[in-house]
Amino acid sequence: MDVPLSCYACGTTAALADGARCDCGEPYWVQTDPSTFEWPDTSERSLWRYRALLPDVTPAGLAAGAGGTPLVRAPRLDDDVGATVHVKYEGANPTGTFKDRGSAVGVAAGAAAGDDAVGTVSHGNMARSMAAHAASAGLDCLVLVPADIPVERLALLARYDPTILRVEGDYGRLYRESLRVGSEAGVRFVNSDTPLRVAGQGTTALEIAESFAPDVPDAVVLPVSSGGHASGVWKAFRDLSAADLVDRVPRLYFVQTSACAPIAEAWARRDDVVTPVEAGETVAYSIANADPPSGNRVLAAASETDGGVLAVDDDAILDARRALASSAGLFVESACATVLAGARRLHDRGDLVADDDVVLVATGTGFTERDLDAPGVDAETVPLSALDETVARII
Amino acid sequence: MDVPLSCYACGTTAALADGARCDCGEPYWVQTDPSTFEWPDTSERSLWRYRALLPDVTPAGLAAGAGGTPLVRAPRLDDDVGATVHVKYEGANPTGTFKDRGSAVGVAAGAAAGDDAVGTVSHGNMARSMAAHAASAGLDCLVLVPADIPVERLALLARYDPTILRVEGDYGRLYRESLRVGSEAGVRFVNSDTPLRVAGQGTTALEIAESFAPDVPDAVVLPVSSGGHASGVWKAFRDLSAADLVDRVPRLYFVQTSACAPIAEAWARRDDVVTPVEAGETVAYSIANADPPSGNRVLAAASETDGGVLAVDDDAILDARRALASSAGLFVESACATVLAGARRLHDRGDLVADDDVVLVATGTGFTERDLDAPGVDAETVPLSALDETVARII
Repeated sequence: MDVPLSCYACGTTAALADGARCDCGEPYWVQTDPSTFEWPDTSERSLWRYRALLPDVTPAGLAAGAGGTPLVRAPRLDDDVGATVHVKYEGANPTGTFKDRGSAVGVAAGAAAGDDAVGTVSHGNMARSMAAHAASAGLDCLVLVPADIPVERLALLARYDPTILRVEGDYGRLYRESLRVGSEAGVRFVNSDTPLRVAGQGTTALEIAESFAPDVPDAVVLPVSSGGHASGVWKAFRDLSAADLVDRVPRLYFVQTSACAPIAEAWARRDDVVTPVEAGETVAYSIANADPPSGNRVLAAASETDGGVLAVDDDAILDARRALASSAGLFVESACATVLAGARRLHDRGDLVADDDVVLVATGTGFTERDLDAPGVDAETVPLSALDETVARII
Repeated sequence: MDVPLSCYACGTTAALADGARCDCGEPYWVQTDPSTFEWPDTSERSLWRYRALLPDVTPAGLAAGAGGTPLVRAPRLDDDVGATVHVKYEGANPTGTFKDRGSAVGVAAGAAAGDDAVGTVSHGNMARSMAAHAASAGLDCLVLVPADIPVERLALLARYDPTILRVEGDYGRLYRESLRVGSEAGVRFVNSDTPLRVAGQGTTALEIAESFAPDVPDAVVLPVSSGGHASGVWKAFRDLSAADLVDRVPRLYFVQTSACAPIAEAWARRDDVVTPVEAGETVAYSIANADPPSGNRVLAAASETDGGVLAVDDDAILDARRALASSAGLFVESACATVLAGARRLHDRGDLVADDDVVLVATGTGFTERDLDAPGVDAETVPLSALDETVARII
C-alpha cells in the first residue's frame, strides 16, 4: 500500500514506508488531494464517509464503527462560556474515545497490507482502542505500557486480550524506540502522532465542519497531549479550505493540564519549539505527555489559525467535569473536561465572545474512570406507601 | 401535544393523556401512520432521522445525540453462531445504553409540553439516561430507585444531579404506582414500557433495517427485561412492513437471564400470559425484571415473527461477554452479553443456520461495570534497553 506523506514544516514528501518523521525532525502527515473533494452524498455514518480524504483501505469489523459521533448543543453552558456551546461527544466511539478514529484507519491499513501484528505505546485510551480494533480484525496487538500503570487500567485493557509488555524507562524515548523496533520486528506501531492515526483523527474536524456547513464554527477547543489529534484537526480544516468547503478556518484552541503543560508553556514564551518538562500528578493523566512528539506542530496550528494554547488546573478540570454532566448530560473523562475549563478561561480573557459558535471536543467517556471524584449521595428512603406524600413534598 | 395511541392486543385507540395502559390490561404504543413512510433523504445521523414515525417534537441538547449507533460485522464470531454475525452497538449512545433513545423522545416531549419535571423508576441504565437528558433540557428529574441499590450505581447516577428517592417495597408495584403518582403530581414518568419510550426504542430497528435495505436480516436477537425495547423493535418492523420497505419481518429472539426468566418460562409453557417470578441473583441484573410490564407483548412479538424467547445462565453470559471483547472488540454490559450466549444456543438447537444474517443488539457498554469479572493480568516487565530482544522473542 503506497500512502504519500508530506512534512507540514518543510514540505518534504515521502511514502509510508519511509517512517513517521521527516529529516527536519518534524512528523509527516498523509498527503491528501482535496482539490476535488465535496461533501459526500451517502448514508454512511462512520468516518469512512470521508474516504476520499483517507488512505485507500476497506474497513471491516469494528473499524466500520468508528466516528459518526454526535454534535450536540449545550445551552445550559452558554452563560459559562459567553458563547453558543456545542459539544462533539467522542465517547460515542466503540471504545469510548476519539482514539478509535486513528486505530480504525491504522488497523485497517495493517490488515490490508497483510500485517500479522500491530502495536502501540499507551497507558490508557489508545491502548484499549488498538487492542479492540486488532481483536476485531484478528491481528495480534502488542501494547507497550509504562511499568507503573495502575492495575485497574491494565485490567480494562486486558479485556481485549492484547499482548501487554510493561517497559521501564523514559516514556518519550519508548515512543520513538517503538517505531524503530516495530519496523524491524514486523509490527506496525500506530502511535499517537503517526501518519495513519493522524489521518483518522482528522475526521473529527470533517464531521464538525459538515455539521455546520455551509457555516463554520468560530472556535474549536480540544485537549492536547502528544499533538496527534490536534494535528489531524488542523490538517482537515486546511483540506476543507483548499476544497473551498469552508471560507475560513476556525480558531483552534488547545488545552493542557497545568501539571504537565509543555506546549502551553512554549506558547506563553512565544517559542515555536516545545521543550520537554517534568510531569506532575494530575487528574487529567491521559493528556500528561511531558515530551509531546507533535508539540511543535500544535504551536503551528494555534498560530496559523489565530487560536492559542493554554493550561488549566485540576480544580478547574473537576469543576468542568461536574458541569458537563449536570448541565449538558455528558459524563466525560477528566482529561477531556479540560475543554470546558479552557473555554471558561478563554471567555474570561475575551477570546470567546457572544456571537461565537464554539465547539468543545469531548474526547472520551467518563465511565472508564467513574471512581475518580465520585460524589457522595444523600438520598431519602421511604416506604412505597408514602410515595404520594413524599413526591408531593419534594417536587 | 396530542399523541395518538393504540393497543396491540385489542385495537383500542386512545391519546397520551389517557395513560399508558388499555382497559384490557395491555400497554398502549404510539399509533403511527407508516403508509407514506420512505427511507429518509437527509444527512441527519441521530434517531430523529425517523421523525416521520416519531411524536412531533423538536429535539434540543442531548436528545439530538441519541441513536445513530454503529452496526458492525463480527466475522470472528461467525463460527460460534453458525451464521453471519452483525452487532448493533448501543453503547455508543450518550449515556452508554439504548435507553437514550426512549429518554430522548420522552424528555423532548416533556419539554415541548412545558413540563417542569420528568421521572422514572430504575436502578441503573434508564435512571442515568433520564437524568442526563433532563439535565441537558433543564428539567428536574425524579428517579425512584429500590432501597437496596448498590452505592456505586447510585454514585454514577448522581453525576447528573437528579432528585433520587429510595423506595422500599415491591418493584413491579412501584413501577405501576409511579405512573399514577406522577400524573397527580405533574411529573411525567417515562418508564420502560411507556408509549413515548417505546416509540424512541423502535428506532433501533429502523436503523438496523435501513442498514440492510433493500435486504432484511434473517434474525434479530435482543436482551429482554420489561419488554419495552422488544415492543418498540417489533412495532418498527410492523411499520416497515406496512410501508412496504421490508418484504418480511426478521425472526425476533429475546433472551433473559436464567435467574429471572418469567417471559422465557411462559414461552416454554406456550402460555400467552406472563406470570411474575421470584428473581435470583445474576450478573445480568439490568434485565432481571421479575414482573415485566410488557411481558405478554414480548410473547406476541416472538410468536408473530416465528422467533422465540430463551434464557441463558451466568456462566454462558460471562463467557459471551469475554468473547465479544476479545473477538469483536466490543466490551459490553453483562446483561447485553446475553445476546451472544442466546445466539450460540439458537445455533445449537438449529434455529440459526449458515446463510442467516443475524443481528445481535448489544444494548450497553461494559465500562459502567468494569469491576465485574475483571481479569487478572500477567504482563512481563522489561527495561527499555531490552525492548528489541523482548519484542523479537514474543512476536
